[in-house]
Amino acid sequence: MPSTDFSKRALLAHKALRGKIEIVPKVRVRRATDLSLYYSPGVGAVSSFLAQNPEQSKTYTMRGNTVAIVSDGSAVLGLGNIGPIAALPVMEGKAMFFKRFANIDAFPIVLSTQNVGEIVETVVRIAPGFGGVNLEDIAAPRCFEVEAELRKRLPIPVFHDDQHGTAMVVLAGLLNALRIAKKKLDAVRIVIAGAGAAGQAIEELLLRAGAKYMIMTDSKGILSKDRSDLNGFKRKLLETTNPENIRGTLGEAMADADIFIGVSKGGTVTPPLIRRMRPDPIVFALANPIPEIMPNEAKKAGALVVATGRSDFPNQINNCLGFPGIFRGALDHGVRDVTDSMLVGAAIKLSKLIPSLRPDNIIPSAFDERVVKAVASAIREPRKST
Amino acid sequence: MPSTDFSKRALLAHKALRGKIEIVPKVRVRRATDLSLYYSPGVGAVSSFLAQNPEQSKTYTMRGNTVAIVSDGSAVLGLGNIGPIAALPVMEGKAMFFKRFANIDAFPIVLSTQNVGEIVETVVRIAPGFGGVNLEDIAAPRCFEVEAELRKRLPIPVFHDDQHGTAMVVLAGLLNALRIAKKKLDAVRIVIAGAGAAGQAIEELLLRAGAKYMIMTDSKGILSKDRSDLNGFKRKLLETTNPENIRGTLGEAMADADIFIGVSKGGTVTPPLIRRMRPDPIVFALANPIPEIMPNEAKKAGALVVATGRSDFPNQINNCLGFPGIFRGALDHGVRDVTDSMLVGAAIKLSKLIPSLRPDNIIPSAFDERVVKAVASAIREPRKST
Repeated sequence: MPSTDFSKRALLAHKALRGKIEIVPKVRVRRATDLSLYYSPGVGAVSSFLAQNPEQSKTYTMRGNTVAIVSDGSAVLGLGNIGPIAALPVMEGKAMFFKRFANIDAFPIVLSTQNVGEIVETVVRIAPGFGGVNLEDIAAPRCFEVEAELRKRLPIPVFHDDQHGTAMVVLAGLLNALRIAKKKLDAVRIVIAGAGAAGQAIEELLLRAGAKYMIMTDSKGILSKDRSDLNGFKRKLLETTNPENIRGTLGEAMADADIFIGVSKGGTVTPPLIRRMRPDPIVFALANPIPEIMPNEAKKAGALVVATGRSDFPNQINNCLGFPGIFRGALDHGVRDVTDSMLVGAAIKLSKLIPSLRPDNIIPSAFDERVVKAVASAIREPRKST
Repeated sequence: MPSTDFSKRALLAHKALRGKIEIVPKVRVRRATDLSLYYSPGVGAVSSFLAQNPEQSKTYTMRGNTVAIVSDGSAVLGLGNIGPIAALPVMEGKAMFFKRFANIDAFPIVLSTQNVGEIVETVVRIAPGFGGVNLEDIAAPRCFEVEAELRKRLPIPVFHDDQHGTAMVVLAGLLNALRIAKKKLDAVRIVIAGAGAAGQAIEELLLRAGAKYMIMTDSKGILSKDRSDLNGFKRKLLETTNPENIRGTLGEAMADADIFIGVSKGGTVTPPLIRRMRPDPIVFALANPIPEIMPNEAKKAGALVVATGRSDFPNQINNCLGFPGIFRGALDHGVRDVTDSMLVGAAIKLSKLIPSLRPDNIIPSAFDERVVKAVASAIREPRKST
């Protein structure tokens, strides 16, 4: 948890700002002519033109550069289902970073419904003004259905950042950690603790990147064929994980693993579990704000590379490394479906921004100006071979 | 119509801007600490606090100062039903002015539905992030139903500017025109040409302000009891207009009228019609971009005061004189229902900003800094008498 002092500071800062973003004209409005040019009657020419040429709207309006950050407030940070109004400051923060890192105009849309069909309908109805949709902090498995349905129905990119953005940054860090450990992705044993939105997306992306051996756990233990309590989404994970059908606790899963990736609960991994892993283990303890195991403990227990989600430790797996460039690329390159293949490409580009690897330096800072360009360059349709 | 040159200039200006508004952080994001303070983990304290104290969200988030500009694109300017994407530049222009004149953060929401129930549902679902809703360019009679239903269902102000904002500014101008003509509102005969959203709201507000004798016309002529083609909303207008049940054309209506208010079609009023009015007639020819009669023609035919909707003639009845101050007042004073009584008060305050009246100077400019304050000061609940 953040310290009481830091929490107080955050509350005061938010109270002073009364909202962290604002909506401003791009040009100064000073004279009656400005009203005529940007509003009536001048805007009439633009509206008439767009009525005939709607495909030009990305040039003549804000929609070419505008993203809706949509949340139902059902899975906000580590706080759970706190509803739309309490989720709003998180979405505002995200909007700040969209602008700061990728010059994208992002606007929070927080919803008073948590029903899949209603969420989908609502987003479809407000979509004409947007160039993309960033789904955020929607609980699993609802988020899977919402994303799948919106991708079918909308002509613009729809992207659940908690899933695919996280997965992309994890993969980038992992590629560099593997270089340090001199291991290959297709030869390592990987444990993913947490089978929610992030865990499932990480599994899917690692699979796409070439991982062959993964075991997943949820709060009840290892996902295995004999579990009768798995929903359809978790059951589907068995097709690509746990080939030996190992059963039991997280401890059993970690025996002989090369890599631990935690997107679960703080403090759930003890040093003895790390010591059960293979030599030179890689530990991504990404629970926020308290990691599954603190970096110094993991190191003392033998971990070669440790990453967390926090900015106050080395190797921060930070979503700000992902979504700004992913949406920048999708908007600039007219990509409707951001595919796992594009995300693997983005992770490789992101990992290569660190030329001299060290165990405490596997991933760039979000403030590194090369990040957005590198990630965006990978989010485009593959060239057709001739 | 705007000249071809001006239309070209407007198209070029819009193309260069690629959207007229942008969404920017209120503070600079420079360091990892900024990420921690405004996003995770700092924002967690704010979200937790708001989950317990949702009423504080107007202070700790943007929603205390944020207005949704909602349109279905069904009645855009004089262009008709051109749909949501072609409506977007108009809504962006409006958002510019919300910020410029009243420091309100307004965001365009253009909808892919024109169904009353779906519009209402959609706005209710996205409402948690907003402090107010400005309905815009929605066709009558749909706009009446949408506004009435949203006012019932939402705890924030909902306001169809094409109706009530227009009516407020018309009344302000009219009060000053009457002073010049030395006539009283309760003694004059008023013709309102146009029985759509604006016309009905003007009728309602003038009635509230004390007008006793009004006749309304639509494209088929005078609204009278024998007309069998009137919808429920127009039929209701007969309760408060046309007491003598005059029948016929606009020409018949204008005979012996003191005031003509046109919110109809350009070029529909000829000089002979003006000459049929009583002495010192007042002519508000507000159709845009072409007024019902051009000001010089109206003057030549005997009009004492002429107003239009255009910035290139004197006495512009400009919505920018209304909505910024109306929403500023509603947000600042916690007003949920902006009533006609508040709007009459706002019109009086607005009219009093012109101390030395002349026929060509009855209403202030939108750039007059006193306007927003004057209007906002009237938008508050009346003091309870003790």
